[in-house]
Amino acid sequence: MKKMLQGNAIVGQSGGPTAAINATLSGVIRGVLSQSGQNGAIQCLYGMRNGLEGLLERRTVCLSELLATEDSLRLLEQTPAAALGSCRKKLPAPDSGKPEDQAIYTKLFDILREMNIRYFFYIGGNDSMDTVEKMSRYAERVGYEIRIVGVPKTIDNDLPETDHTPGYGSAAKYVATVTREIIRDCAVYTTKAVTIVEIMGRGAGWLAAASAAGQAVGGEAPDLVYLPERTFDMERFFASIEKKFAEKPNLVVAVSEGLRFADGRYVSKVTGSSEADAFGHQYLAGTAKALEVAVKWHFGCKVRSIELNLPQRCGGHILSLADRKESVAIGKAAVEAALAGVSGEMMVFERLSDQPYSYRIGHRDVSRIANGIRSVPDEYINEGGDGITDACCAYILPLIAGECDILWKDGMPEHLIL
Amino acid sequence: MKKMLQGNAIVGQSGGPTAAINATLSGVIRGVLSQSGQNGAIQCLYGMRNGLEGLLERRTVCLSELLATEDSLRLLEQTPAAALGSCRKKLPAPDSGKPEDQAIYTKLFDILREMNIRYFFYIGGNDSMDTVEKMSRYAERVGYEIRIVGVPKTIDNDLPETDHTPGYGSAAKYVATVTREIIRDCAVYTTKAVTIVEIMGRGAGWLAAASAAGQAVGGEAPDLVYLPERTFDMERFFASIEKKFAEKPNLVVAVSEGLRFADGRYVSKVTGSSEADAFGHQYLAGTAKALEVAVKWHFGCKVRSIELNLPQRCGGHILSLADRKESVAIGKAAVEAALAGVSGEMMVFERLSDQPYSYRIGHRDVSRIANGIRSVPDEYINEGGDGITDACCAYILPLIAGECDILWKDGMPEHLIL
Repeated sequence: MKKMLQGNAIVGQSGGPTAAINATLSGVIRGVLSQSGQNGAIQCLYGMRNGLEGLLERRTVCLSELLATEDSLRLLEQTPAAALGSCRKKLPAPDSGKPEDQAIYTKLFDILREMNIRYFFYIGGNDSMDTVEKMSRYAERVGYEIRIVGVPKTIDNDLPETDHTPGYGSAAKYVATVTREIIRDCAVYTTKAVTIVEIMGRGAGWLAAASAAGQAVGGEAPDLVYLPERTFDMERFFASIEKKFAEKPNLVVAVSEGLRFADGRYVSKVTGSSEADAFGHQYLAGTAKALEVAVKWHFGCKVRSIELNLPQRCGGHILSLADRKESVAIGKAAVEAALAGVSGEMMVFERLSDQPYSYRIGHRDVSRIANGIRSVPDEYINEGGDGITDACCAYILPLIAGECDILWKDGMPEHLIL
Repeated sequence: MKKMLQGNAIVGQSGGPTAAINATLSGVIRGVLSQSGQNGAIQCLYGMRNGLEGLLERRTVCLSELLATEDSLRLLEQTPAAALGSCRKKLPAPDSGKPEDQAIYTKLFDILREMNIRYFFYIGGNDSMDTVEKMSRYAERVGYEIRIVGVPKTIDNDLPETDHTPGYGSAAKYVATVTREIIRDCAVYTTKAVTIVEIMGRGAGWLAAASAAGQAVGGEAPDLVYLPERTFDMERFFASIEKKFAEKPNLVVAVSEGLRFADGRYVSKVTGSSEADAFGHQYLAGTAKALEVAVKWHFGCKVRSIELNLPQRCGGHILSLADRKESVAIGKAAVEAALAGVSGEMMVFERLSDQPYSYRIGHRDVSRIANGIRSVPDEYINEGGDGITDACCAYILPLIAGECDILWKDGMPEHLIL
């Protein structure tokens, strides 16, 4: 165990919102509060507003004072999107040699020194881990003693080295639930119709896969599910619909927003494809909209497209209990790891078993995560490339398990606003 | 009190799905079951699959046997969309004199006679009340003794003669909750951005108004709310955004899908307007998409559009407790009214007080409902026509109040499939 650094800590949230990113923030606060009780090394936990962007403008709050009660932490945990605000700032290379790049680091570390920050927690996705990696390298070079730990979050579930990411379980629960509700809705009429549901995930299909989570447990799933891990073929898609129509009149199709054709073009930008040309339009809309037009053109039946859009990533009212618990736990574990000397690493989940579900929290060198992407593996996608396997369901189900006891007020869920 | 008719009953669901239409079906079943205990007049309650369409094909099930347990009724009540299936069949005028029209009625009443149906319940919106009205007239003409009662349902809340409609409260709760979550999501960045949320309601703005339900109780509301009760003016819209931008960088705007310009054109079809011409596109998408393009063109800032789409009407996982209770109660009351001799009427809610909220159930001549529409009244819309008043909130809040104890399985809400 390395020596215990005495000083303050700071935490930031970065990248796109999730429903559980505040649960992780709460975990970091809980971690600091519980070590304080033991005359801990960390005196104050600051929060940076809008991530690095706000830190560079000295916009910080003292979280360990502001949110020290169980009530406020509980409310924070059910509040979707980053309570501290977020940013998309990308740091330059710390060793670029350019004076303007150097100036950013000088300013950043002047502020850290001034505030006596010795523990730095950054909750975010891929880009945020790039920040953790660069800051760690710079700190080492200039000899500033600080522990910098990344804590994952992304609804996309596409970070390498971790079994899954906080935030994915709740988004997946929203997608699984709402898709099932859409299936109910679409089943009421007897007329031939196709409903296409577009789900987030540009590079990986984890979230679209969740639309079929119930399939292995006797539940319902969309008739066809397309992930970006497979190239999309319009003629094969038409043939599959044709085949499904022989069984029933109402079809529900789930698609990842990131679907591409074999030549690399996104399905969402079908200008120039034969199907779209029949209309002569330039589509401003997404994948599902493009497919809606194509299916309408080919089959002449009723077609509807539904983009699940932002509600799938900020559905605090339908938090997964597993996700919330794990998101808190990994935040707390980050503080413990940093106190024990860990730096330049990202906290990860390691799954020990699907059923009964068990996992442990570890950490990995952030440089192994910063620029990678974890796709849905082959064994989770069916042979036809238009559905998921039961193994995929077994992976997803524990992550969407359980419902949270949400606090409601006036018929709406309560949120904590910092 | 009229004489008690001995025979069977039948119930059908018609029109667009809602999250509470099955709660009303459950209420009808409960009504029949509870009179059976008292050696009631109704022997069997049938359900017609796909409304009149299925009845004409003799596709019926015996609900009073199939769903006689508390467990199955409870599951039915949390299942969104019409469990019996729906249809959009419109009956011809019963006195048109055309032989093909007459043939439909002859067939329909032959089936009713054959099944000894003396009680007919039709759960639906405007078109369904038209069916109730026409069937009642025909029954009277041919002297077939039957009690025909309409039970309202529509997320649009636009039926005349009733304070509100079953299904509205749950859809409104979804809209209020998800809008608030979207507001949280949009607040995380500091960059100038406009998010436009499109909410269902072609003729009336009740559901769009629900996006601002929290406004009167210290909650958050969209920065601007536009209902179809006011004509939409693009220049005034731009000016309002400009003004709001002076206060904060992230704006959320809620719009009804049915917005129109002063000349009567729908905003969703802006082809030919000066804004859209700048792009030379024909938009296939909705109101929010059209406004997204216009705002992007005018302000050059980040703009996003979100169509709440089907999930707002089938959100069984976020049922309003008030709505579910009332939906069951009005179904049960329909049976009691029919037994007492009511026919050719639609069940209605009469509000007695906002706070504490109280109401009673009554019934009105269906001909007063069949072809009318109830708009959001002037006193519920603010002076600028870009928001709602506190009186409007006071109207909405009791309807979205309370959460249901939903049964979940494998991380998803359970549904009953008939």
